[in-house]
Formats: sequence, structure tokens, C-alpha cells
Amino acid sequence: MKAAQFHGARDIRISSVPVPTPKSNQVLVDIEWCGICGSDLHEYLKGPLVIPTEENPHKITGEALPVTLGHEFCGRISWAPDGSELKVGQPVMVDPRLYCTSCLQCENTRTNMCQQWGFLGLSGTGGGLSETVAVDANACHVLPEGVDLRFAALIEPLTVARHALKSSGLKFESLSVLVLGGGPVGVAVAMDLKVHGTHQIIVSEPSLNRRNQVAKYCDAALDPMEALIADECRKLTGGTGVDVVFDCAGVMPALRTGFDALRNQGTYVNVAGWGSPLTVPMEFFQLKEIVFRASMSYDEEDFVEVVKDFTTGRFPAVEDMVTSRIKLEDVAQRGFEELVQNKDYHIKILVTPKPELLT
Amino acid sequence: MKAAQFHGARDIRISSVPVPTPKSNQVLVDIEWCGICGSDLHEYLKGPLVIPTEENPHKITGEALPVTLGHEFCGRISWAPDGSELKVGQPVMVDPRLYCTSCLQCENTRTNMCQQWGFLGLSGTGGGLSETVAVDANACHVLPEGVDLRFAALIEPLTVARHALKSSGLKFESLSVLVLGGGPVGVAVAMDLKVHGTHQIIVSEPSLNRRNQVAKYCDAALDPMEALIADECRKLTGGTGVDVVFDCAGVMPALRTGFDALRNQGTYVNVAGWGSPLTVPMEFFQLKEIVFRASMSYDEEDFVEVVKDFTTGRFPAVEDMVTSRIKLEDVAQRGFEELVQNKDYHIKILVTPKPELLT
Repeated sequence: MKAAQFHGARDIRISSVPVPTPKSNQVLVDIEWCGICGSDLHEYLKGPLVIPTEENPHKITGEALPVTLGHEFCGRISWAPDGSELKVGQPVMVDPRLYCTSCLQCENTRTNMCQQWGFLGLSGTGGGLSETVAVDANACHVLPEGVDLRFAALIEPLTVARHALKSSGLKFESLSVLVLGGGPVGVAVAMDLKVHGTHQIIVSEPSLNRRNQVAKYCDAALDPMEALIADECRKLTGGTGVDVVFDCAGVMPALRTGFDALRNQGTYVNVAGWGSPLTVPMEFFQLKEIVFRASMSYDEEDFVEVVKDFTTGRFPAVEDMVTSRIKLEDVAQRGFEELVQNKDYHIKILVTPKPELLT
Repeated sequence: MKAAQFHGARDIRISSVPVPTPKSNQVLVDIEWCGICGSDLHEYLKGPLVIPTEENPHKITGEALPVTLGHEFCGRISWAPDGSELKVGQPVMVDPRLYCTSCLQCENTRTNMCQQWGFLGLSGTGGGLSETVAVDANACHVLPEGVDLRFAALIEPLTVARHALKSSGLKFESLSVLVLGGGPVGVAVAMDLKVHGTHQIIVSEPSLNRRNQVAKYCDAALDPMEALIADECRKLTGGTGVDVVFDCAGVMPALRTGFDALRNQGTYVNVAGWGSPLTVPMEFFQLKEIVFRASMSYDEEDFVEVVKDFTTGRFPAVEDMVTSRIKLEDVAQRGFEELVQNKDYHIKILVTPKPELLT
């Protein structure tokens, strides 16, 4: 079968690989759609970063590059063992996380903090940028029969957002929130804030196209190249500053703006991956007694919740997140290179190994 | 009268200055004891830092250097206006904070976060390293008649610690806590943790003398030059790591150790002032979803609480914090220079303008 494999920075090849053989606890899923994630793009530009190498194979999979990419994928069961609750043809969204199942964190259902964490499609064992994957049966979340699989892969970035909101421990109905960055995770956070009935949602994003997207479900979409975001936030909150910032940008100028925009004793949640050092602006952190939190991945409960909210249509304008659909063979040029060259245009590019789904 | 005035780095002079004239809302306090704070020492070594200069006078006091130092001081009322509740001879501890009283923070009793914050003894209007100060009547906390004023100045650093504990929002009875740094604030935090019935108190401090001091009220006093503090913390907590870290050190090696020593979703509280950039160790912060908080100064309520706990003898071995007592005339050499040269020996040096109190 065909699979998009990562060999190194800017080196993604469509290869012919064996159809995977499921283990006793696994099923086969024929992929319909797979998203390209920001972390995939980081690997494409500067990898291998978290992708394991021959010198450092992944602790759970034992595998190393080349790995088949893709961890935001949905499809249909194409094989299940006798007696499985999963049936051939069922639409499923796959929780792509790998964790050891036996450490203190895993035993306490904090699987997102397993120290051996990994992802299908980054850590080996096959990913969603292929025709078929073998996955643990309990990683499959069955979707209702009539579900539109053309958007179901978005469940994964929406779950990243859900975890960030939930782990903050906040009730959003009365809060003003600034989201830094309108990429896939920023958009998902803004969307989930809307689902949570947030009092005021402000997004800072330099790309006009992305601002137009989020404008549908946020109260203000501001351009940090034109507006002084912290001042604007104070204006929009009667002078106090926002209660919460979600950092979905991961760069110092945005972080400084976010700390400045916060009210005293406000909460700053980092969701972003950082490629360069994060230096805390003490004049805001200390003097305003800011609570600075980190959100890491998501857990089983987050996934179950988002699947339910997605299939019951709770996410507003989720379709708008998809800015391009391409076939698997085109993933290097029309997927990864396109995201590099036209970064400002795109939110999410979805890839299918079934060309007939593109029509 | 005599006053120790800061003119610039390593330039503290005993000068003759006028006895201050109280304003209508003020009283005069004759100083008995005044502590030298870490922030005073920072100013001595590298100042002016927060001490205002002629180009940038303080927003509240309008004053600039030379300023009379000292913000941890107690004494007795030597003049009060007719009708005042304060009487001549009463022992008092002074809340040295300056705040504007009219901003959003001050109106919400978050006076510690007033953007125009300052301190008597750092921001102008006279400080405790002198014979007499004029202070607002409502900044005076009356102490019981029999109180031992020889230790009352310690109320100020103990209040810094109290605010750090309270603002974390945690209940300490069941928690394991690591304190980074056994200087005055670290010792005060460890002491207040004891007052709060903390399950396990671990202190990391390189100086043997300081470790011996804190050993009296903590469960383990460790030397970071000899022990791997994070590993030791895991050993002492059954493998999970500590629940909370209080950073009273303000240097990167300690911070990295603290983030490493924390359990997943643990809380890191910064109490320290930082002289160099604070870069977040993302491999701990993000993967462990650490909650990173800042504690700033203290407020009226903290001060009232600590005065009460101090006068009812709740702080264990508080006397041991005082490692030297000197007279005002000697403050430059036997105070500031001594702290620089014999840093590892000292916790708190107390200064008096009344030589008779030294006997």
C-alpha cells in the first residue's frame, strides 16, 4: 500500500509499504481523511525533532525513521477479529496517542503525561498518511453511521483545545479571553471557547484569511501587526485586561503581548509548542501575580467528550477550518510545501488516500 | 538625626538629616530595630534598581536618591496627633508599603499590585535605618505591651512568606513542599509552612550554617552542591516528586531543579526577585503541566495575620533568624559588606540606632 514517510527535513516520500498486520488487540482501519498537524510541519522543516532516530528508537514502539506520518485521522474498520465489538465498515476516529499503560500517570488516567508518550504517525507503527493502519481496538471511537467523515479528522485538534480549556479549571461564561494565534489549534480553542459560552473571545492573528475565519465565532479578531493588542484588550474589558490568555502561537512577541494583556492574577495557558526559549516577562508575571499553566496533549475523557460534541454538531463553522483537500500522492508538494509557502492562507489541509473522495 | 542613606552602588553613608515632620495623617516612630533585606542588598551591589533617581522620581513620593534605607522596622510611637488611637510609647511594627489608594487594584484591596507600588526605605520619604520615621497612622500595627521588639522586625519577611503561601490557594497539611534557598525569605517560607502543618518540608540550600538553622523545623535540609535535589525529592515522596516548590533563590540552576523535582500538575511558586532572565524548562513545564505562579509582596490582611501569629508565638525558632545585631553607624561595613563577604553565614542582620539596646 502507499504511505507518506518522513526520512528527514523536507524529505517526505510516497513509498510502497506492506499492509500492516494487526496484533491480537488490534483492528485495521482504512483511512478516509488525515490532517497535517503543526507538529508534522515542525518535523518537515526541522526534523527529526520528536520523531525517533536509529540511535534513539521510541521507547514504546521500538521504531525509528522513516516513519509513516499522520496522527489526525478517521476512516472505516476494514478488519476486526472475531468477537470484536467493532464491525467492518464502521466509521471511526482514532485516538492516536501511545502511552505505556503501566506508569504512575497511566494508572491514574493521566495518560497524557506518560513519560514514554508518543503518537501514531510520529513515533512509529504507521500513521494516517497511508491507506490502512493497524490500531488498538480501544483507540477507535465509533462515530454514528451518518457522520460526515470529511470533517471528522478535525476531532483531534479540537481535543487538544478541549484539554487546554478543561485543565485550566476555569468557568468561561463570565470571562474575557485572548487567544494568541489563529492557526489550527488557535481556531480550535476559539471554537471551543464558543461552545463553553465564553463571555468575550478575542483572537490575535496576523493573517487576514485566518482572522476572517475566526471572526465568525469570536468577538474581536485583531491584527497584531496593526493594533497594540494589550491596549485593545484593556479597551475591550473596561480597563482591567483579559482574564485568560491561550497561547497558540509559541513565539516571544506574542507571549509578551499576552502577559501585558492579562489582568492581575489572570491565567496564561500555554498550548503551543516552542521552538525557541521561553523567557518569562517578570515585570508582568511577578507584579501581576500571573498564573502560568501548561496544557499537554489530551486524555481519553477529552476525546470522548469532543467526539460527542462533534457528532451532535456543537462546534460552530467547523467546516471552515478545512482550507484544502488533496490526495495522498500530492502530500509533499500540495500539503507540506503549500503550508510553508502559503502559511497565512491555510488552517487545515486534509489528505485522502482515496482519490474518489475528492470529487 | 542620623540616617543611613543610599547614594549609589556600594555607597551608603551615615548622614545627619532633619527629623521628619509628620503630615496630618501621620505619626512619628522612634526606631528600635530594622532588618537588612535582600532587596536592600541588591541595591547596595547593583543599584539604583528600584530606588528612584532624579530622572525618574517615585510616582507616589516624588523623591529620588539619596534615600534613607530600611523597610523592615519596628519601634515605638514618639509623637501622635491629638485624638489619635496611637499613644506615645506604644510598640509598633510598620507596614512599609506605599500604594496609590485610588487605582482599580487598591480599591479591590489588592494593594500589593498597585502599579505605583513602593516601599518606605526604598522609594523615598525615609526608612528604618534612621532614628525616627514619619509614617501613616494606619500603617502602624500596634504590638502587645510585653512584646520582644528585638525580633518584631522579622514580621516583615514572615509576611512575604505568608502571602506566598496564601496566594497559592493550597492546603498544605497533606503536601510535600520543596523550598529553594535558605536565605531570609526561604527560612520564613519554611517556618510558615511549619505553622501551616505542612506534611513534608524539604529545603535546598548550599550554606551549612543556613541548613543547620532550617533543620529545626523542616524534614530534610539538603545541599544542592552534594545531592541531586530532584532525585532526593522523588525518594522522599515515594517516587512522585513534591507537590509544591517555593523558589526563594531566583537563579536558573535552582529553578531547573525545582521543575524537575515537581510531580505532574504540581505548583511552582516564585517568591524570589530575579536579576537575570528566567527561561522556562519546557521539558518539565509542558510535559508535566506545571502550574507556575508568582507571589508579589503582601497585603494588609497578610500583615494583620502575621502580627497576630508572631505575637502569639506561633513561629518556631524565629529567634534563630537573627545572625547579627549591629548599631546604625556600622551598617555599611558590619551590615552590607558583611552580608556580601559572609553571605553563607547570615540569615538576618538587625540594626539599631539605639546602642543601649545592643547590650
